[in-house]
Amino acid sequence: MGRNITNIDGIKISSIHSGMYKKRRLDLSLVEISKGSSVAGVFTKNKARSDAVNVTEKNLKKRSPRYLIINSGNANAGTGKNGLSDISCYIKEISNITSCKLDEVLVFSTGVIGERIKYKKIINSLPKLYNKLCNNGWDDLSKSILTTDKCTKTSEKKITLNNNKVSITGVAKGSGMINPKMATMLSFVATDIKISKFELNKLLKDITDTTYNMITVDGETSTNDSSIIIATGKSNVDYKSLKKTEKEIFVKNLKELYLSLAQKIVNDGEGATKFIKVNVERVSTKKLAKEIAMSIANSPLFKTAMFAEDPNWGRILCAIGNIESNVNDLSKIEIYIGNILVFKNNSIYKNYSESKAKKYLKNKNLEINIKYNNGKESAVVWTTDLSYEYVEINAEYRT
Amino acid sequence: MGRNITNIDGIKISSIHSGMYKKRRLDLSLVEISKGSSVAGVFTKNKARSDAVNVTEKNLKKRSPRYLIINSGNANAGTGKNGLSDISCYIKEISNITSCKLDEVLVFSTGVIGERIKYKKIINSLPKLYNKLCNNGWDDLSKSILTTDKCTKTSEKKITLNNNKVSITGVAKGSGMINPKMATMLSFVATDIKISKFELNKLLKDITDTTYNMITVDGETSTNDSSIIIATGKSNVDYKSLKKTEKEIFVKNLKELYLSLAQKIVNDGEGATKFIKVNVERVSTKKLAKEIAMSIANSPLFKTAMFAEDPNWGRILCAIGNIESNVNDLSKIEIYIGNILVFKNNSIYKNYSESKAKKYLKNKNLEINIKYNNGKESAVVWTTDLSYEYVEINAEYRT
Repeated sequence: MGRNITNIDGIKISSIHSGMYKKRRLDLSLVEISKGSSVAGVFTKNKARSDAVNVTEKNLKKRSPRYLIINSGNANAGTGKNGLSDISCYIKEISNITSCKLDEVLVFSTGVIGERIKYKKIINSLPKLYNKLCNNGWDDLSKSILTTDKCTKTSEKKITLNNNKVSITGVAKGSGMINPKMATMLSFVATDIKISKFELNKLLKDITDTTYNMITVDGETSTNDSSIIIATGKSNVDYKSLKKTEKEIFVKNLKELYLSLAQKIVNDGEGATKFIKVNVERVSTKKLAKEIAMSIANSPLFKTAMFAEDPNWGRILCAIGNIESNVNDLSKIEIYIGNILVFKNNSIYKNYSESKAKKYLKNKNLEINIKYNNGKESAVVWTTDLSYEYVEINAEYRT
Repeated sequence: MGRNITNIDGIKISSIHSGMYKKRRLDLSLVEISKGSSVAGVFTKNKARSDAVNVTEKNLKKRSPRYLIINSGNANAGTGKNGLSDISCYIKEISNITSCKLDEVLVFSTGVIGERIKYKKIINSLPKLYNKLCNNGWDDLSKSILTTDKCTKTSEKKITLNNNKVSITGVAKGSGMINPKMATMLSFVATDIKISKFELNKLLKDITDTTYNMITVDGETSTNDSSIIIATGKSNVDYKSLKKTEKEIFVKNLKELYLSLAQKIVNDGEGATKFIKVNVERVSTKKLAKEIAMSIANSPLFKTAMFAEDPNWGRILCAIGNIESNVNDLSKIEIYIGNILVFKNNSIYKNYSESKAKKYLKNKNLEINIKYNNGKESAVVWTTDLSYEYVEINAEYRT
C-alpha cells in the first residue's frame, strides 16, 4: 500500500482509523513537513466556515507549519465554541508529542456539518500516528480524506529543471458540495522545489483561479474548502534562480497537476454519469465568460437534459440569458454541442441535425462550446449532469 | 365547464385545441378586453427572452390592449427572425378578424424553447376562437396554458368597497423553470374595478415583489415569464375615489390572490413532495433577507434533505454562508425547523431534539425559520424539495 505514488522528500505521512467513522476505514492523517519548507494555502469563502479553516488560515499567516492534522467524517462546522476548543485540545496534544509550537499545526476537517467532533478519538490516535510517519504515505492520505467520494484523487509530476529532478505530488477529495470559490474541499500538494512563500502563494492563487475555481458539481460551496501546497526545497532546484523558460515549465506542470485533480473531483461528482466541459469563448471580459459558463454548468435543467442525452439546447440559451451581468447583445452567440453547431443568428442553425447531436450525447465526456463573438476572453468550467443518483446520495447521506 | 370561476365583466375568453400539442387538449386561448380597461404587466428579466415578451411589452407601452393571444406547447424563444415574423403573421390575422389595431394585441407563449412555432395552426384557429368568445372562459383558460403542470392554478376574490361589489379573478401556470425575476411564467388576473394604468402598474410591481418574485422551484428564470393584470372598470367602484382604508382592503385582497397563485405554482413544482416556506427575520436590509432565503431555497443539498425528511440543518447553515453579500456576523443567527430551535450561539441548541425535527419533517407543508437578529427587515420565499421525480420530469420532457 502507498508505494505507487511519488514521495516528496521532506514530507512524512501516516493515516489511521481513529473512529470518526464507525466503519473500519482510514479517517485521520498526520503530515509532517520538514523545516525550511514554504507553505501556501487558499480557503473557502463560505461565511459559515469551520473554525478548522479559521485556525489554519491564521496559523499559516503567522508561521511556517510543521504538521497538518486531517480528518474526514466530521466537518467541525457550525459547532460554535466547542468547535474551536476541541481543535485547541488536539493541537495542544500534537505540540506535546512532536515538540512543535501550537501555531505550527494546521487543521483540516471534512464530513457532516453541525455535529461535535470526537476530538478524544483524535487525541488517542496521535501517538500511533506520530510513530507511523513515513515517506510513502500519500496513497493512505488520499484514502483517509474521502467522504461521499467513490474513488481517490491523486496526481503527480516528475520534471527536470536545470538538469535536476523536481517532483510534485498531490491528493484531493470532493464529490458533492462542489462549487469552489478560492479553493476546493481538501487538497494537499507537495513539491521538493525550493521557492519562497511569497512566490508559492502567488502561483497557488493564479492556478486555483483556472482549476479548482472553475469546477462545479452542484453549485454548493463547502464550509471547509482548503487547498494547501508545500514546497520542501529538498531538491537541488531553487525556483528563483531558474531561467524564465524553466519557471514556465514548472508552472505549466503544476497547473496540469491541479487541473487533473480538479477534473477527477468532477468525474467523481455525486451521481455523475457525464463529465462536461463548458467552454465559453470570444467574450468581452473573463468575468463575463466565467459567469456564462457557470450559469450553464449550474443549471439543473441543462444538467438533467445531459443526463437524458437530450440535446435540449433551449435550456442552454435560457441559462445564458439568466446571468446577472447586463448583456446587451446575444445576437452573435453560437451554441455548439460538441462540434455540432446548433444555434446561430438568433435561431436554430439551418444544417443542425438533432439525430447527430443525440448520438454525440451518448458519450461520457461531453463538450458544450459557446462562441459569444464579442471579445477575446474565454473561460472553461467542468461539471457533471444531474441524475437520480445525486438525489439518492444526498437524500440518504446521514441515514 | 368554466362556470365555477367568477367572471369579470368586460372580459371574454375562448380556448381551443389548435394542434400545438399532438394530444387533444386546450392549447390556445384568445382574451378580449373591453374598451376603457387599464392593463399592466411585468416580464421576465431573462436576457434570452422570447419575442412574444418583447412584442407584448412594446405594445403595452404604446396602447391599451384589446386582445391577448396565448399558446402553450411552444415558447417561441430562441427562434430568431422567424419567431418575430411568425408573431406578426398571427397578430395581423387577429387584427383582420377583430378590427383592432396591430399593437392592440399582446402575445404569450410557453413550452419548448428553440422550436419554430406552428403559427398557421394559430391562424387557422382564430375564426373559431373569435366566435366562441364568452364571459365564462376562465376555467378553460386556466387549462389551456398548462405545460408540465399537474393542475390548474386559479384564484378569485369578491369584495365590497364603498357599498359596491368588486371581483378579481386570476389564473397562472408554472411548475418548472420557476425563479421569477419580475414576474412568473404566465399569469392573467382581471378585476372590474376602475383604476388608472399608472396606479395599476404600481400595484402590480409592488405585489409581484412579495409574491411571484419570492418563489423558486429550481432557480431557473424562464425566457417567457409574463404577468398581466387587467382592470375593466365595469364595476361601480373607482379606485381613486376610495377612502384610504378601502384602497387598503382592495390591495390586501389583490395581494392575497397573487400569493395564492404563487403558492399554487410552488405546490405543483416539478417533482415536489414538500411545500416549504423559508422565513428569514430580523435582518438589516430586505435585500439581504431575500438573498439568505433564496440561497436556502435554491440549495440542492437542502432540498434533497427535505425530500429525505432529514433535519440536516448543517446544509441550511452552509447555504446561509454562501450568499454573495458581505455578512460580517453569523454569530447571532438562530435556525428553526418549524418551531424547533436547532442552532443558536454558533452551535447546536442544547435542548434540540433530532427525533422531534424528524417527526416534524414528515409533514407536507414545512417552515424553515431563520432569525438573523441584526435588524428589522424580513423576507419569505416559498419553495419545494428536490426529488427523483424532478430529475425524471426534466430528463424526459422532450422525449
